[in-house]
Amino acid sequence: MQTSFLDRLFDAGLLIDTGVDGLYGRGGRFEDVIVAFERLIDRVGGADGAEAMRFPPGMNRAFFEKSGYMKSFPQLAGTVHSFCGNELNHMSLLKCMEVGEEDWTKGQKATDIVLTPAACYPLYPTVARRGRIPMDGALFDLQSYCFRHEPSQDPARQQLFRMREYVCMGTEQHVTDFRQRWMDRGVKMMQDVGLDVTIDVANDPFFGRAGKMLANNQRDQNLKFELLIPITSVARPTACMSFNYHQDAFGAKWGLHLEDGRVAHTACVGFGLERIALALFHTHGLDVAAWPADVRNTLWG
Amino acid sequence: MQTSFLDRLFDAGLLIDTGVDGLYGRGGRFEDVIVAFERLIDRVGGADGAEAMRFPPGMNRAFFEKSGYMKSFPQLAGTVHSFCGNELNHMSLLKCMEVGEEDWTKGQKATDIVLTPAACYPLYPTVARRGRIPMDGALFDLQSYCFRHEPSQDPARQQLFRMREYVCMGTEQHVTDFRQRWMDRGVKMMQDVGLDVTIDVANDPFFGRAGKMLANNQRDQNLKFELLIPITSVARPTACMSFNYHQDAFGAKWGLHLEDGRVAHTACVGFGLERIALALFHTHGLDVAAWPADVRNTLWG
Repeated sequence: MQTSFLDRLFDAGLLIDTGVDGLYGRGGRFEDVIVAFERLIDRVGGADGAEAMRFPPGMNRAFFEKSGYMKSFPQLAGTVHSFCGNELNHMSLLKCMEVGEEDWTKGQKATDIVLTPAACYPLYPTVARRGRIPMDGALFDLQSYCFRHEPSQDPARQQLFRMREYVCMGTEQHVTDFRQRWMDRGVKMMQDVGLDVTIDVANDPFFGRAGKMLANNQRDQNLKFELLIPITSVARPTACMSFNYHQDAFGAKWGLHLEDGRVAHTACVGFGLERIALALFHTHGLDVAAWPADVRNTLWG
Repeated sequence: MQTSFLDRLFDAGLLIDTGVDGLYGRGGRFEDVIVAFERLIDRVGGADGAEAMRFPPGMNRAFFEKSGYMKSFPQLAGTVHSFCGNELNHMSLLKCMEVGEEDWTKGQKATDIVLTPAACYPLYPTVARRGRIPMDGALFDLQSYCFRHEPSQDPARQQLFRMREYVCMGTEQHVTDFRQRWMDRGVKMMQDVGLDVTIDVANDPFFGRAGKMLANNQRDQNLKFELLIPITSVARPTACMSFNYHQDAFGAKWGLHLEDGRVAHTACVGFGLERIALALFHTHGLDVAAWPADVRNTLWG
């Protein structure tokens, strides 16, 4: 079932096979849907006056290390490595690649860059440098390609995908209000483009047995909700948005303080752009011209 | 001089310091300029009917290896590595990160993904799978984030940057005509946005002493031209576009054949989007609202 939807996407030129599971090119019509949905996000969120920042798909390794990502999700991270040798090393490298018996990548050295695991990771250290956060809060609008090393033939589980995010910093009341507002908006937006949604409490895919406890804790405290839409399975719908309340954990880690000196609370709302496009293609068919008029109107009207 | 332009870009919120040379976030107004310039490219190239494809910032490592990039530019490539261990390995990893004496990244294993070095690299194997190329040629429209490991404080030399490309495949005449057409268009486009341009023969930054010969050969045969605009130095203007004729080298490597069985020739034209935006900010100032009316009109009119 999953493979067949992927094959249909390849056949229609919406996704492009690269020979690696979870790594796909996008056809022009697939991109058009992403662009249109991002404009819809702009219209819904625009009046909030968020500050737009666009980080590249890689981030400072030092900040990544400090984030604790390797504690929670070591299996998903991607570090970037480069050749740092001289001409003699280069000749050995080329011989190694030619013979093909040994793994040539062993000589690669880690650079200062790690692939961005979620669009908001580079934001916290950036805001921390600026000084204190106003008592009425701060709001940021982010989008970037993100990497997660989880090869899969489910087109909704890609290794490189785009996440659009709003991140709110302020008092507990301020950021939990923000999260609730986007849960309401998210449901309405998806209904407006003809998608069948539910919202449920959720947890992150923490690594290992110790991670199970973290996951249970996250669920018990209602820290993460997901907006779910059926894509490759009706029984297990796919998370297309997530709504995360970090309490003061990120504020304490990164030194984010409100003007009165208290540690800021933070929350973020993320859109999985490829997943939303896939949900639209799965629900309304692969031919955009044949989508229901009201859906087309919401996206391109 | 270079550092000071970078500092002014940081101060104006156009670029965002991440603590790593050549790795910057982009402010909303910087992005607006990139979006506007891409729309200008769309208008100029739109009637050519190129097929749009958008690849993510990483590509299949097997294709990257076959491309020969590690022969020519080993120092610039970025391979993506992940943790592939069990819970015991994870505990050792965390201890290693905590103690900080040993390099924790040594245990990372290369994945099937390498960062894309130029927007067109994933295209050739994709087109090769499709079968023969029509005698009147094939044309593709690409854009992606690209990685080059060359840390620098010159804002025009970034490690992660976006490249927009058109790639043409066909007979020698067809693809060299394409290249000449875009050299003319490129000069006109830059003049229309008030930039002072020259075009010159150029070469790629091939690695080592053996690379010098390749570079000389490329220049002697006029295989690469660059459109240059002063950004951080008037004496050494920055390449903001490149115009590359590959003869039948890529056609032969990837098995790209015309309908009559001959090996296809290929050429590509690349826009360095961040560099063009930087040239605009350097030439017209950091306040977009104060740019000359005709430039604003060309970009947003």
